[in-house]
Amino acid sequence: MAVSWLPTLQGYQRDWLKADISAGIIVAVLIIPQSIAYAFLAGLPAETGLYAAMLPLLLYTLLGSSPTLAVGPVAIVSLMTLEALAPSAASGFSMPAMASVLALLVAAFMVLFYLVGLGRWTAFISHTVISAFTSAAAIVIVMNQLKHLSGLNIGRNGLFYQPVIELLTHFHQLVWPALALAALSIVILWLWPRLTQGTISKLGPLLVVTLGIISVQSGVLQVATVGAIPQGLPSLMLPALLLEQMTQLPWKQLLPSAAIIALIGYLESLSVATAMAIKSRSRLLPNQELLALGGANIAAALSQGYPVAGGFGRSMVNLNAGARSQLAAVVTALSVAIVCLFLADWFSDLPTSVLAAIIVMAVVPLIDWRSGWQAWRYQKSDGVIWLITFAGVLLMNAESGIFLGILLSLGVYLKRTSEPHIAEVGRYQHSDHFRNVERHSVTTCPQLLLVRIDENLYFANSQLLDDFIQRRLQQSADVRHVVLIGSAINHIDFDGYESLRQLITRLNEQSIQLHLAEFKGPVMDQLQHSDLLKHLAPGQVFFSASDALRQLGGK
Amino acid sequence: MAVSWLPTLQGYQRDWLKADISAGIIVAVLIIPQSIAYAFLAGLPAETGLYAAMLPLLLYTLLGSSPTLAVGPVAIVSLMTLEALAPSAASGFSMPAMASVLALLVAAFMVLFYLVGLGRWTAFISHTVISAFTSAAAIVIVMNQLKHLSGLNIGRNGLFYQPVIELLTHFHQLVWPALALAALSIVILWLWPRLTQGTISKLGPLLVVTLGIISVQSGVLQVATVGAIPQGLPSLMLPALLLEQMTQLPWKQLLPSAAIIALIGYLESLSVATAMAIKSRSRLLPNQELLALGGANIAAALSQGYPVAGGFGRSMVNLNAGARSQLAAVVTALSVAIVCLFLADWFSDLPTSVLAAIIVMAVVPLIDWRSGWQAWRYQKSDGVIWLITFAGVLLMNAESGIFLGILLSLGVYLKRTSEPHIAEVGRYQHSDHFRNVERHSVTTCPQLLLVRIDENLYFANSQLLDDFIQRRLQQSADVRHVVLIGSAINHIDFDGYESLRQLITRLNEQSIQLHLAEFKGPVMDQLQHSDLLKHLAPGQVFFSASDALRQLGGK
Repeated sequence: MAVSWLPTLQGYQRDWLKADISAGIIVAVLIIPQSIAYAFLAGLPAETGLYAAMLPLLLYTLLGSSPTLAVGPVAIVSLMTLEALAPSAASGFSMPAMASVLALLVAAFMVLFYLVGLGRWTAFISHTVISAFTSAAAIVIVMNQLKHLSGLNIGRNGLFYQPVIELLTHFHQLVWPALALAALSIVILWLWPRLTQGTISKLGPLLVVTLGIISVQSGVLQVATVGAIPQGLPSLMLPALLLEQMTQLPWKQLLPSAAIIALIGYLESLSVATAMAIKSRSRLLPNQELLALGGANIAAALSQGYPVAGGFGRSMVNLNAGARSQLAAVVTALSVAIVCLFLADWFSDLPTSVLAAIIVMAVVPLIDWRSGWQAWRYQKSDGVIWLITFAGVLLMNAESGIFLGILLSLGVYLKRTSEPHIAEVGRYQHSDHFRNVERHSVTTCPQLLLVRIDENLYFANSQLLDDFIQRRLQQSADVRHVVLIGSAINHIDFDGYESLRQLITRLNEQSIQLHLAEFKGPVMDQLQHSDLLKHLAPGQVFFSASDALRQLGGK
Repeated sequence: MAVSWLPTLQGYQRDWLKADISAGIIVAVLIIPQSIAYAFLAGLPAETGLYAAMLPLLLYTLLGSSPTLAVGPVAIVSLMTLEALAPSAASGFSMPAMASVLALLVAAFMVLFYLVGLGRWTAFISHTVISAFTSAAAIVIVMNQLKHLSGLNIGRNGLFYQPVIELLTHFHQLVWPALALAALSIVILWLWPRLTQGTISKLGPLLVVTLGIISVQSGVLQVATVGAIPQGLPSLMLPALLLEQMTQLPWKQLLPSAAIIALIGYLESLSVATAMAIKSRSRLLPNQELLALGGANIAAALSQGYPVAGGFGRSMVNLNAGARSQLAAVVTALSVAIVCLFLADWFSDLPTSVLAAIIVMAVVPLIDWRSGWQAWRYQKSDGVIWLITFAGVLLMNAESGIFLGILLSLGVYLKRTSEPHIAEVGRYQHSDHFRNVERHSVTTCPQLLLVRIDENLYFANSQLLDDFIQRRLQQSADVRHVVLIGSAINHIDFDGYESLRQLITRLNEQSIQLHLAEFKGPVMDQLQHSDLLKHLAPGQVFFSASDALRQLGGK
């Protein structure tokens, strides 16, 4: 597993510089309010979010193969961080310290996944499952923000729709200034990109943040605010010190969450990076991304941040603003650092209802009903997988929901391959094509049974072929030859091989001979390597079903 | 799910009666020493085994569809019972009471499996995994019996080979009379069936049991014996009473073991019954067997027995002795009852080293190195699955081992289908057959790319087809048409459909048209039902690759 260093800075061209700098600043404008908002969503202090948008970006630059992926705090991972840290928070442990530990564990899992080559295995999480997961997570996020939008003090107990009920039953306690500011922010965030164009259209979040801060500082509105943010950069923690501090915290209970966050963070980053790579025809190193994101999360852990991943919105802004390399990310990180050094105080008057508005507007587009509906229309089983994953995330939690979805989709696929279509076929008209005798009028021959199985022959279905042939033989006493057509068999495992051997023996006891036809090269290689063909004799291997029908049936 | 009652007694013919009675008595002669031995293996008193060989047989007769399956205590389930009850025994609970509760839970799982139609899902446990599991379990059983063979007091701690080490280090403490009796029993059990024929050859166990009892009663040998066995039949317990008693016992911790014992007991019974059904050309109702075995285990629970299943050896004896229906089992149960009523006392002088010898000789044939070696030779991955399952059972325990094996075999299968063979093909000579351009000299056409994917298009591999085509397109700029050959695709799921849609869009952006050829009827139906063909237009659907090459390439 060769590793490429600073991949996006190799062969750097001087004329990329201007584009990288301007793109980096534009992303910074977007990422600063978002970082504060997502930290808030994760139940962490505002500075945690800003810190997670500095050093992790630099570390990603070292190894990341996507020139335009913008790493930092993201919505779904923030929700999962909130859920992961809830038990520790309830036991009175320091949330920021636990968040650093979580980032370290996420990094450890990403490196572990890199070492075991898990990058490839993520293909087993279907888009249907991811779509349902993301949609439900977005709804949970919106529900969590209702209390900040409304200024109500709503607990986090009960089912996902609990906040709606509380809102309706405590309608008289609504904090109208907070609600009005949130509503105004939402309208601005919705209208702004529709009324403006280019770089300026990305300034919506900065606009509502400024508006909110000014209305608080001018004394126009009295609403809950973010509160004091320490001026300056995060104090770096040595890894040894971090590990020592970790032993005093209940880190073991974070392990399952850390594994799932690592997986989801990687998947989200990879899907964003892949989409951009296709658009810009650049080359991505999927497995190395695990290492790069692992590095980013170590940086988050060492600089008092929390778990990070590649964000969709800001990466697209980066790409569209013309970024050519991860130098843009370096510029973003420096910009965030300058804000931390000189402007942190200013953000302390930021109303939480404005943050909630930013979060809601960022996650609502993630709710993808259409995909669920399309899956259902395409085939019921995929729709059911979508629905159960969706319900699982809403009714249990993000981790259990996605786990359920993965198991279900694998189960459905395995079940399907274990019940393959098996058909008796015959020659279609005068062609070389053979078709199901039950669907078409085809030529067959009483002493010959031509059987096609439309699936790999493996342990979960090897018995069925035998059953099918025995059933057919009971109906026709004249059969002397059975020809197994292997055009749809891509692989035969040991159980399949054993069942073929037993089939040969059992047919021989009935004075019937088995033959093979249209088996593919690799499958034939495998059988030749075994002793199956010796057992088959005098049964033959035919190139095509046509040859078999001609030689054995004389037709 | 229609249930058939007394299936093997329907259409009973009078001339079957004699054969059923004699077969029933022969099986009783075999099952009596075995029941005592297997109860002993499970760490239970001798009468528990005898009780498990009475009422359960009658209950199986009610629903069981195999005329010759002989139900009762079996080796592997006895080992799993021992492992399941070990924690309860350590906490001082009554082992026989816990064994009854375990049988009830096993029955409950079997009925549950029947209701959810799990019978079909057992196909996912490959023969490779079962072979490795059985082999390792047999070795564990032999190791457990070493202390009884040698008369040594060896603890059950440590790894599976611990008894061998203890035997070697405590060599001077060997109880020579016990060892000599065991050795003699083993020799007799080995030689007897080789020197005799017919019914008489099954009497080996009875012979060594008689020999052992006589040598103890005559005072020739002083060795450990089974000890007092209560004369008479088990006192039946009402279900209500059993459930009440259960609440005082730690039954919840037995749940995982009960589930696996239900699964293994069913699998073992079914494989025996299937083998006999093929031999005798009779019809088996696999799912109803779950209900029948569930009934047998309820009977075991109510009559102070322990979990039961169908045994291989005694079922074969039953079949070969000419049994025609489960009436033979009724005769066996009555014979066992007579022994319990009048001869129980006599068995109390049975030396434990003789029992150990019977157990060892019964399980050694289960050690199936050959199957493991053949799997390895057929293909490394199947050999590795065998080896890891085998090692898992030896180093952890039976349940964890088989669970690991099942997960691994599913993982290997899924991994394989997620990395399908994708090939560019061309016309082979002047035939209608198309072959890989890298393996054969074939006719192609510069503006046409013919691609075949040898697997179902589903979420775990849908991205790869896209990657393959994009890579090929980078090499040849002239391509205007891509033809996807679907002869090996048996199913396309929603992810596969979405990736095809994206492929069409992306190719269109490059002014390339996608076409389909040789797609199967059911797959085509599915696509027609969706809007894919609308997206495909003006791309066409060809009957054969040959037609596509002719129309698009003019060849």
